[in-house]
Amino acid sequence: MKCSAKGVCAAKGFTANGIHAGIRDQDPARKDLALIYSEQPGTAACVYTTNKVKGAPIQVTKAHLKNGTAQAIVVNSGNANTCNADGIEIAEAMCDSAAHALDIDPEKMMIASTGVIGQPLPLGPITANMAKLTAGLDQDGHTDAAQAIMTTDTHPKEYAVTFELDGKPCALGGMAKGSGMIHPNMATMLSFVTTDVNISAAMLTEALHEVCADTYNMIYIDGDTSTNDTFGVLANGMAGNACITEKNEDYQIFKKALYEVAMHLSKMLAKDGEGATKLLTCKVTGGASVKDAKAIAMSVVSSTLLKCAIFGEDANWGRILCAIGYADAKVDIDQVDVDLISAGGDVAVCRDGHGIPFSEDKALEVLKQDEITVSVVLHDGTGQAEAWGCDMTYDYVKINGEYRT
Amino acid sequence: MKCSAKGVCAAKGFTANGIHAGIRDQDPARKDLALIYSEQPGTAACVYTTNKVKGAPIQVTKAHLKNGTAQAIVVNSGNANTCNADGIEIAEAMCDSAAHALDIDPEKMMIASTGVIGQPLPLGPITANMAKLTAGLDQDGHTDAAQAIMTTDTHPKEYAVTFELDGKPCALGGMAKGSGMIHPNMATMLSFVTTDVNISAAMLTEALHEVCADTYNMIYIDGDTSTNDTFGVLANGMAGNACITEKNEDYQIFKKALYEVAMHLSKMLAKDGEGATKLLTCKVTGGASVKDAKAIAMSVVSSTLLKCAIFGEDANWGRILCAIGYADAKVDIDQVDVDLISAGGDVAVCRDGHGIPFSEDKALEVLKQDEITVSVVLHDGTGQAEAWGCDMTYDYVKINGEYRT
Repeated sequence: MKCSAKGVCAAKGFTANGIHAGIRDQDPARKDLALIYSEQPGTAACVYTTNKVKGAPIQVTKAHLKNGTAQAIVVNSGNANTCNADGIEIAEAMCDSAAHALDIDPEKMMIASTGVIGQPLPLGPITANMAKLTAGLDQDGHTDAAQAIMTTDTHPKEYAVTFELDGKPCALGGMAKGSGMIHPNMATMLSFVTTDVNISAAMLTEALHEVCADTYNMIYIDGDTSTNDTFGVLANGMAGNACITEKNEDYQIFKKALYEVAMHLSKMLAKDGEGATKLLTCKVTGGASVKDAKAIAMSVVSSTLLKCAIFGEDANWGRILCAIGYADAKVDIDQVDVDLISAGGDVAVCRDGHGIPFSEDKALEVLKQDEITVSVVLHDGTGQAEAWGCDMTYDYVKINGEYRT
Repeated sequence: MKCSAKGVCAAKGFTANGIHAGIRDQDPARKDLALIYSEQPGTAACVYTTNKVKGAPIQVTKAHLKNGTAQAIVVNSGNANTCNADGIEIAEAMCDSAAHALDIDPEKMMIASTGVIGQPLPLGPITANMAKLTAGLDQDGHTDAAQAIMTTDTHPKEYAVTFELDGKPCALGGMAKGSGMIHPNMATMLSFVTTDVNISAAMLTEALHEVCADTYNMIYIDGDTSTNDTFGVLANGMAGNACITEKNEDYQIFKKALYEVAMHLSKMLAKDGEGATKLLTCKVTGGASVKDAKAIAMSVVSSTLLKCAIFGEDANWGRILCAIGYADAKVDIDQVDVDLISAGGDVAVCRDGHGIPFSEDKALEVLKQDEITVSVVLHDGTGQAEAWGCDMTYDYVKINGEYRT
C-alpha cells in the first residue's frame, strides 16, 4: 500500500474544486464552497452525527442515499444550515444548483455544510458561483476542495493510498476538516473519501462503520458533538476489479486502505484541534476487552486537566491515573503501568498503580516534543486500543470565545 | 430559615481551626491543615468520589464511619495522599495524631486530603503542628478552616442557616473547596457540614444522598472526576430536639436546611471554578422527567464550546441547542425555547428549535453580567432541574498547565 499526494482525486475518474463564493465573508482568499465529482455514478455510504439536532444537509443526504448511489458531493463552510426554518429547502436548492451545472440527477448529490448554527444560509452566493465551481473541476483540485471545507482548521487535510485488487491498480483518498467538537462519534467533523474500487453499497457501508469506530470515533478535542458531522465514501468502480460483495480477502484489503486514510486523517484532525500545539496519543494494552481498552484510551485523551498539563509540559501522571479510574471500564487499578513516550525518549512514571521516582529533566525532554504518547499497560486481558487528542491551550479559549461574532 | 455567618461553627458544640503546617510550601500565609471538632460525638455520614482510584483518606474514613459515628474531621490541602504505596498508613497516622491531641478514639476521626496525586504525603509537618492546631480550636475558627482546605480556590466558601426543630433552635453550616474537576458526582470537591440536630445515622445518610443529587452532583467545571471527593456531615445532637428517625416533618425541615447550605456552597464552587469569571446556571422546565431535565441542564453547563462563548460574551445559542441535542435525554428538539437571562435583562434567542431575530446589543447587555442563566423551556412534560457551571477562560488553561511544577 503506497501513499499518494492526490487526496480525493487519487482515484480514477474523480475531479474536484474549491472556490470562494462569499458565504462567510468577502475575503477572496477564503474558500467556502467545494465540489467533488465522479465521471461515473458509484456506490456511496455515510455515517452521520448522533446529535438529535441534525443539520438540514444531513437529512437531505440521507434521503438521497436511500438507493446507495451518488456521483458528486457539494460542501460549504461558513454556515452549518442547522436550526433554520427553511434549512431543507435551501439544502435541496443547493443540490439542484450543482446537479443542474453537472447535468446529473439531483438525487445523485451528497451535501454537507459546516459553520455557525442557526443563521440562514444565503443561497445567492452559491447559485451565482456554481458555474465557476463546476467549470474549474480538475484532477489537481483536491487541495482547493480540502481548503474550502475548513472552518478553524489551520491547514487542509488530505491523505491517499494506492494498492492492487484483483490485479487492478486501485486508489483511495480523502479529505477532512475539524477542528473543535470532535467527540463523541465524530462531532463537527467532515470527511469525504473517494475510491475507484468496485464494491457493493452494503459492503461499503459495512467497511465504513467498522473503520469509523477505530478512527474518527477515537479522537477527542473538546467533548462537544456537533450537529453536522458526516463521513462519506463514494466508490465509482472504475478500477475494474471484480465487485466486492462479501467479506473476502479483497474486502480486507479495501478495509485496510480505508483504515489507513481515515487513521491518518484522524491524527491530523487531533493534532490540529482548535488551538492545539501537540498531538496526544494514548495506547492501551492488556485491557479486559477491546471495549474496556477503548474506554480507557478515550478517557485519557479526553481529560481536560491532562490536556492542560500536556500543554504545560508537566508530567502530572496522577491525572492519567485519575482518568483511567473514572473511565467506564473494567480495570484493576493496582496493576496499571504508565509511560510517557515521544521522540525525546521514554519515561516510566507509574508502576502497579503507584508513582515511581523519575527524572523531571528527562520527563521535560519527553514532553517538549510535539507528539506525545501516553502508554497504559494493564494486566486485565488482551484488549488493545489507541485514541488521539491534543493539548488544551489559551488559543482554544480564544478561538471559541470569538467564533461567532 | 435564617442565614448565619459562622460556617462550620454555627451549630452548638463545634469549634474549628486552620493553620499553616508546611505540607505544600513554606509560605506561612498559606494554610494547609484544618480541624473541625465537636464537644460530643455524633452521627456522621459521607458521600465519596465514584472514581475507581480512591484517595487513601477516603478508605480510612469509610472504615471509621462503619458504625455511623464521629467527633472530629481533619483535612489537609497540598497533597491528595493518593496513589502512594504507604497512603493508608499515613492517613491512619494523621488520624492517630489528631485523636491523641484531642483525647478521643482515632475511630471517631474523619479525614480528607486534597492536592497533587502520587507524591508521598509528609507526615512530619502534620504531627509537629498538631498541638498547635488543636490548641487553637475556636468558635471563630471556621474561616481559618475553610481557608486551610483551599487549593486553587480564590476565596474560602462557607454558608450556614439557623432554624427550629421541635421548638429547639438549631443550626447547620458548612464549608467547601473546589475548584477544578467538579464533575460528575462531585469530583475534587471537599465539603463538610456540621449541625447540632439530633438525627439517626440512617436518616442523615438518606438526607445526604438526596441533597447531594440536587446540588454537588449538578455542578460542572471541567469534566474530570477526582479521586478524593468527600461530602461529609457530622450531627452532634446538642440542639436537644427529638431524634429524627423517620421521614417525618422534622426530616423535611432538616433536609431543606441541608439543601440550602449545599446549594449555596455549590453555586460558590461553580462561580469560583478554576479561572472562571462568570457563574453559568441552566434552568430547565417542561422536561419529559426530572432525569431528562437534569441530563439536559448538565449537558448545557458542561459544553466547553458554550463555556468559551460565555467567556467571550457571545450569544452563540446554537451551541446550547447542540448541547441539548447530544444530552442523553428524551426531548422534542423542535419544541425547544431558549432565553438568556441576567441582571442585564432577558433575551429570547430560540423558539420551537429555530433561531429568532434578536438584538445583539441587548444580548451583550445580558452577557456582560457575571451571573448568566440559560433558560431552557421544553414541551415534553413537567420535569425541572437546575445545574451550575462557569465560563472557560485563559486562566483555566494557565492554572492547569502549571499546577504541579
